[in-house]
Amino acid sequence: MYRKVLSYIKDNNLIKPNDKILIALSGGPDSICLLNVLFELREELNISIAAAHLNHLLRGEDAFEDERYVINTCNDMGIKCFVKRVDINAYSKESKLSSEMAGRNARYDFFDEILEKEGFNKIATAHNANDQAETVLFRLMRGTGLEGLGGIRASRDDKIIRPILCLSREEVENYVKLKNLNPRIDKTNFEKIYNRNKIRLDILPYMKENFNEDIVQTLNRMSTLLQKDNEFLEKLSAGLYNKYCMECNDYFIIKKEIFKEEESLVNRVLRHALTRYSKSNYDFEVKHIYEISCLAQKYSGKLVHLPNGVCAENVYGDIYIKTKTKKSDINSKKEEIILGKDNIYINTVEFHKYVIQFSIINGYNENSINLKQGDFVKYFDFDKINNNISIRNRKNGDKIIPLGMSGSKKLKDIFIDMKIPKNERECIPILCFDERIAWVIGIRISEEYKLTSKSTNILKVVVQRKEY
Amino acid sequence: MYRKVLSYIKDNNLIKPNDKILIALSGGPDSICLLNVLFELREELNISIAAAHLNHLLRGEDAFEDERYVINTCNDMGIKCFVKRVDINAYSKESKLSSEMAGRNARYDFFDEILEKEGFNKIATAHNANDQAETVLFRLMRGTGLEGLGGIRASRDDKIIRPILCLSREEVENYVKLKNLNPRIDKTNFEKIYNRNKIRLDILPYMKENFNEDIVQTLNRMSTLLQKDNEFLEKLSAGLYNKYCMECNDYFIIKKEIFKEEESLVNRVLRHALTRYSKSNYDFEVKHIYEISCLAQKYSGKLVHLPNGVCAENVYGDIYIKTKTKKSDINSKKEEIILGKDNIYINTVEFHKYVIQFSIINGYNENSINLKQGDFVKYFDFDKINNNISIRNRKNGDKIIPLGMSGSKKLKDIFIDMKIPKNERECIPILCFDERIAWVIGIRISEEYKLTSKSTNILKVVVQRKEY
Repeated sequence: MYRKVLSYIKDNNLIKPNDKILIALSGGPDSICLLNVLFELREELNISIAAAHLNHLLRGEDAFEDERYVINTCNDMGIKCFVKRVDINAYSKESKLSSEMAGRNARYDFFDEILEKEGFNKIATAHNANDQAETVLFRLMRGTGLEGLGGIRASRDDKIIRPILCLSREEVENYVKLKNLNPRIDKTNFEKIYNRNKIRLDILPYMKENFNEDIVQTLNRMSTLLQKDNEFLEKLSAGLYNKYCMECNDYFIIKKEIFKEEESLVNRVLRHALTRYSKSNYDFEVKHIYEISCLAQKYSGKLVHLPNGVCAENVYGDIYIKTKTKKSDINSKKEEIILGKDNIYINTVEFHKYVIQFSIINGYNENSINLKQGDFVKYFDFDKINNNISIRNRKNGDKIIPLGMSGSKKLKDIFIDMKIPKNERECIPILCFDERIAWVIGIRISEEYKLTSKSTNILKVVVQRKEY
Repeated sequence: MYRKVLSYIKDNNLIKPNDKILIALSGGPDSICLLNVLFELREELNISIAAAHLNHLLRGEDAFEDERYVINTCNDMGIKCFVKRVDINAYSKESKLSSEMAGRNARYDFFDEILEKEGFNKIATAHNANDQAETVLFRLMRGTGLEGLGGIRASRDDKIIRPILCLSREEVENYVKLKNLNPRIDKTNFEKIYNRNKIRLDILPYMKENFNEDIVQTLNRMSTLLQKDNEFLEKLSAGLYNKYCMECNDYFIIKKEIFKEEESLVNRVLRHALTRYSKSNYDFEVKHIYEISCLAQKYSGKLVHLPNGVCAENVYGDIYIKTKTKKSDINSKKEEIILGKDNIYINTVEFHKYVIQFSIINGYNENSINLKQGDFVKYFDFDKINNNISIRNRKNGDKIIPLGMSGSKKLKDIFIDMKIPKNERECIPILCFDERIAWVIGIRISEEYKLTSKSTNILKVVVQRKEY
């Protein structure tokens, strides 16, 4: 069994040498199994481990017995054990969360605290293959897509890892029996009032008896396959998102060209835009995605109302995702970043969707400077700047002396000439030196700060859109 | 309800004006509903309809009552009804198929016969949304991937259509009750000995009561989404299949470069290659696909045995899919296509994986002939051919006078110079004129048949690989 877990760890790249792993230890069979397996493998994997137990104060004396059991077990093994007590009932009422969610939040807050204070880099949780099968069935019944059917991931963000996700509950139970570990049993696991337990105690056994003896592994194999499909589709959609979605302050724009792409990807991009715009975990339904797709075929000005205070509008074929009540008057909410000239030496600034990077180059020579690097890499004469550098959105009355011209031109006229829609103009960042416009980013630079053969200190500015 | 079916038909592009649609009519509620709905919509859709009923002679007198009911119903509506009787019990024993499969085969044979004889172009079947939900759950329990979870398609090959797949069983039953249609009831639908009925009578009701009132529609929505994901991934894999797989007579080659592509797609390509090579519907499992992926990392010569008489071998990193018993001595089984010179005027020939197209051009001028069209478009002096043109695989001792050279060279040496692996050589088609090699297709043409400024009749040969 150690071999099985070891190859699962390797196949999924869960653990690296010198990892400091904190084991989430409830005291039940799964976490006790996980503790012992990682303990046995700690030298082979070259890791250090510790455990953390949160007493939820939920099941009276039982909870304290769990706590004592966990502490004693760790002591016997010579493993450090962090323990904390939180009144989940009180926290749940206070935060208006279900006691399950409240417990989860409290646990992860506790784990994160230890990671930070004690220098651990990973949290190991004890989900097993049966948990996986139950999760998949639960999501299937509640309604899901490819992502949900992928179930629990072997790891998340290279921080939370699930090394025994490959073991069935039976394997876990046999292991703890064989090693006389006497884990604690949570009696509520046998009460069918919880949905999870209905799947565990009714649905899976029925399927096993009538359809497939190997149902748990079958569902696990399916999830693994679907995770791969989903990861690939997500990667492709991330590319489309960056290509077709503009995130402005108060609204997002989804360019009409996206609707020529694969429906499967477009749906993902629309869902991502909605979730990201509404800054919540609200799960937009298939029908909402479908409504937006239909909206793109409708006339300009047509609006659909979506849940969670969001609506979508057709603007000449593009889709604007915005807030229901708010009018799209962007000028009311402006941001500006101002940097002193002295603070500019190798510096990175984030402005909305953009990452702007400054660096200084000494002297103009062809090896270090390539003026043809596209619309998002530009060079300026640093010595022409007096005091400060700022990044802001456009303002009424903005003017620039475009490169190669002698007189100034209104920004508005440049935008009109280039046929940039009104609302998009609000999203374009503008780089100013001493309050004068040096670069309408991606659009035009100013004559005033251009390089000459005499330039000695050169400011290089690289602008990138933030990734997905 | 007519509106619902009509928009489902339109959204899925199931029916075109002037379609002649044959309705598969068992006499049960679903098919009676389908018959009536298409009857009501026939003018709006501008289609003609008829029905077909196969009496399986399985349920004694009940089967004859079904037959009479179907005939009377169609007569009352003025719809033509084709009826046939087949002893499915006998056919099932004879063909060693389950009676379900035997019945299915007999029905589709009957429908195809009518399509051909009577000029119908589509078959409509009466699957409903509950059938869809049951199919998805059934596949899920038996083990499946993305394709299986997509469930029943709204249409297949633009020939079989399922116009009421959007209706729940409840909607169907309400409809037939409301219209006093008194369909026939198959009593075996209530016997739980059939797996399907266990899903219908146990699993779905349990899920509905405990998890999701709307479970049937939820599973249908999921399938629709997953179908789109799957179609897109299938399209991408088809591209990879054509790029990396060579289908030879006795074996397939999967080039090693494929393993740099997305795992999700590679798995699909491997599965497709296995299924196509074994020319059966045998469902290779995930673990077999995984074995081949692992094989690619192993040493050359390493072999894995797969089910259905197939094995895979690592040949310098490439994967060869072949038959277990047979040695890869391709020379024993050669094919040759021979065409008389007179039969060549605009002619297309298929040779294994290739489509070879001949045409004659009169006179050599730059407008009609572009000599730089790549390795698969070549021109020859037609008048230098005496009797026949043939396409074959290589033989021992093959020689060619390569273009630009005066002496002949062994094909074997050319292959060695070009580092073409031994087994691949067997797959390369060779074009001969009067038994002399004119073109090792994709590799080299002969000096003997090259165009000159004096050529009057020119043979153009275009070679394409057959698609997926």
